[in-house]
Amino acid sequence: MASGGRRPQLRKDAVTNRWVIFSPARAKRPSDFKSKSPSNPNPNPNQKCPFCIGHEHECAPEIFRLPPDNPDWKIRVIQNLYPALARLNPDSDPVPFDRNSDANSVVLEGAGFHDVVIESPLHSIHLSDLSPPEIGDVLLAYRTRIRQIASYDSIKYVQVFKNHGVSAGASMSHSHSQMLALPIVPPVVSARLDGMKEYFEKTQKCSVCEVQGEDRLIDSSTHFISVAPFAATFPFEIWIIPRDHSPHFHEIDDEKIHVNNSDTHTIAQWWTLQAVDLGGLLKLMLRKLSLQLDDPPFNFMIQTSPLEVNASDLSYSHWFLQIVPQLTGVGGFEIGTGCYINPVFPEEAAKVLREVIVLI
Amino acid sequence: MASGGRRPQLRKDAVTNRWVIFSPARAKRPSDFKSKSPSNPNPNPNQKCPFCIGHEHECAPEIFRLPPDNPDWKIRVIQNLYPALARLNPDSDPVPFDRNSDANSVVLEGAGFHDVVIESPLHSIHLSDLSPPEIGDVLLAYRTRIRQIASYDSIKYVQVFKNHGVSAGASMSHSHSQMLALPIVPPVVSARLDGMKEYFEKTQKCSVCEVQGEDRLIDSSTHFISVAPFAATFPFEIWIIPRDHSPHFHEIDDEKIHVNNSDTHTIAQWWTLQAVDLGGLLKLMLRKLSLQLDDPPFNFMIQTSPLEVNASDLSYSHWFLQIVPQLTGVGGFEIGTGCYINPVFPEEAAKVLREVIVLI
Repeated sequence: MASGGRRPQLRKDAVTNRWVIFSPARAKRPSDFKSKSPSNPNPNPNQKCPFCIGHEHECAPEIFRLPPDNPDWKIRVIQNLYPALARLNPDSDPVPFDRNSDANSVVLEGAGFHDVVIESPLHSIHLSDLSPPEIGDVLLAYRTRIRQIASYDSIKYVQVFKNHGVSAGASMSHSHSQMLALPIVPPVVSARLDGMKEYFEKTQKCSVCEVQGEDRLIDSSTHFISVAPFAATFPFEIWIIPRDHSPHFHEIDDEKIHVNNSDTHTIAQWWTLQAVDLGGLLKLMLRKLSLQLDDPPFNFMIQTSPLEVNASDLSYSHWFLQIVPQLTGVGGFEIGTGCYINPVFPEEAAKVLREVIVLI
Repeated sequence: MASGGRRPQLRKDAVTNRWVIFSPARAKRPSDFKSKSPSNPNPNPNQKCPFCIGHEHECAPEIFRLPPDNPDWKIRVIQNLYPALARLNPDSDPVPFDRNSDANSVVLEGAGFHDVVIESPLHSIHLSDLSPPEIGDVLLAYRTRIRQIASYDSIKYVQVFKNHGVSAGASMSHSHSQMLALPIVPPVVSARLDGMKEYFEKTQKCSVCEVQGEDRLIDSSTHFISVAPFAATFPFEIWIIPRDHSPHFHEIDDEKIHVNNSDTHTIAQWWTLQAVDLGGLLKLMLRKLSLQLDDPPFNFMIQTSPLEVNASDLSYSHWFLQIVPQLTGVGGFEIGTGCYINPVFPEEAAKVLREVIVLI
C-alpha cells in the first residue's frame, strides 16, 4: 500500500501556524512521483531574449550589475518591465491610506519596488548549473538589493522568489528571480511570526531552530541544514535553514564576496563563507529535485522577517529558504479553505531525497 | 492604456481580511481576457466513466440519490473513492489530539467525510446546462448532506467546492462537485470570521450585507445578488450573496423541493423558491464567464460558517458562493506571501460581465 498504509493525518506547523492534511491514500509511492509538466527546456537560445547578454537595451533600467561597470557581467539586477507595483518615488509624501466609502475597506497606493535578478548572462544556463560560489553571488545580489530597499520607510517586507517553469509562473525562460518590496507585511509572514512568537512564549525556544528531527533531515552543510518541514504544504517541499539563529536573510555574512575577486579564494576558503555554503546546499537540493522528480517546475521563496522590526525584538524569528516543486494543482478546496492536501508524508519525502545521489 | 491608466492599488477586504494587489499595468484590457486552457471538453462519452448512469457499481458506496430509490436518478451523493480524510466512524472515541515530540506541533487524526455529488447522470452535461430548478436540486443535495454531517460533534466545517477543468483541479470530466467535512475550522474561514467580526464591532453592520456597491454589481435575482468583490483575489471573481442576512448555507429555505415533484410547480412558483432562484443566478454567472472568457476552467466554493457555532452568535457572519475562473497561475510570490496580484479591477470586471448577453 502507498506510504506504508499510514492513515491520513492533520498537522499544524509551529512555524507556519497552518494546518495541512496528509493523505497517503491519494498517492503513488513517494518514489514514484514525477513531474507531469517538465519545466521549460530553455528553447532556442537564438531567439531574441532581453535577458541575454547584449540585449540590455531591451530591458527596463538596470539597478546594478556584478561585476560593477563590466560589459562582461555575470548578474544583473534590473527593474521589472511589467511591475506589479508602481515604482516608489523616494521624494514623495508617505504612502496615503484611504477608506472606501461603501465597504469601510482599506485602500493603499500600490507603490513599492518590483525588481528582477538575471542570474546568468547566458540563456541556456539554469541556476542549478552555476557553481556554489556563483549561486552565492546571486544570493548576495538579493542581499545587496534588500539592504538598499531597507532605507525606505514605507517598505515593510521584501519577498524574494524564483519561478522556474511555465506552470510555476515563469513568463521568461532565461534564468531569473524576482524581488517584490511591499508597503505591507503579507498575511503568510504575519501568520508565521504569530506562530513562531506563540511557540517561543510557550517554550522559550525558536520553532525553526527546533526543526531538526533526524527523520526529516535531508542534507547539511557547514552553516545550513535542509529538511522536509513537519507540516510540508506541498509534496517534496524543502526548507534550507541557517544553523545560526537569525531573523533576517539580509544579515547573512560574507561582505567580501564579489564575482571579480573569486580567484583570490581557494576552494577551502569559499566553503567557509555562508553565502557560498548556502549556494552549494541550494544547488544540491535543486539537483536532487530535478533528478528525482524529472525536472519539475518549482518555486523558491526566502522567508524572512519584516524590515522595520529590530532584530532584538525578533528573538523568536528565524529566516529560511523554502523550495516547492510544482507537482499537484490547486483546486477549489485549497482556495476555499487555505488548507492543502499533501499526499506525501515529509518523513518519506526526506528519505527519498536523502538517497538521491548527485555529483556536484 | 490598459484599465484606463489606473495606478496599482492595494486593497484589504473587510470580508476576507486579506490584502490584494491590483496591478492593471500587467493586464490586457479587461475585455481581452480569455482562457488559455479551455476546460475539459467532456470527451468521448462512450469511454467508461464510473459517474455515468449504469456504472454505479464502479463507484464507492452511495450516500443518497435523487429521486430516492430510483434507478433513473438525477443526482447521486457518493463517497469519494480516494478520500483525503479517513471516513469518520460515528461509534469511535472522540478524535485524539497528539503532540509531536520534537516540534511541539499539533497532530490530529485525519478523520472526516469526503463526498462527491454527481450532478447529472449524463457524461456530456455540464452544471450550467441544467435548468435553474435542476441546479437548485444540486444545491439542495449539498444542504441535505451538510445537515446529515452536522450531527457529528467532531466535524467543525464542511467545505463544498467544485473543480471544473483539469487546470482547476478536476480529475474526472463528468460534472461533479465535492464536500469535505473537516475536524478543524480552516484558516481562510477563521480569517473571514475575524474580518467580519471586526467590521461588525466597528460599524454594527454586516460586511457582506454592505457589499452592494453599484459599480461592482453584476446581476441580481429575487433572493440573491452577484457582485465582483471589493478586493477580488482573482480576475473576474464573482460572489453570489443572499440578500437575507444568514450565516449558514445549510439554512437555505425550500424544504419541499424534490426532483420528483417538480411538475407540481408552475414556473412562477419555482422562482419564489430560494434554491431555484440561486440556481438561476449561478447558471447565469457560469454562462457569462464561459461566453466572456472562452469556457475557462473554474472553481466555486460555498463560503459558510462553522457548524458548531449557533446562528445567534454569528450575527456578523453571512454565507456566500464564490466563483473563481482560473485565468492566472500561482507562483512563488503568492505562495511566499499569501498575497495575490489581480490585473483586473473588480469595477471593470463587473462592467464587462454586466454587459454579456446570455439567453437562458
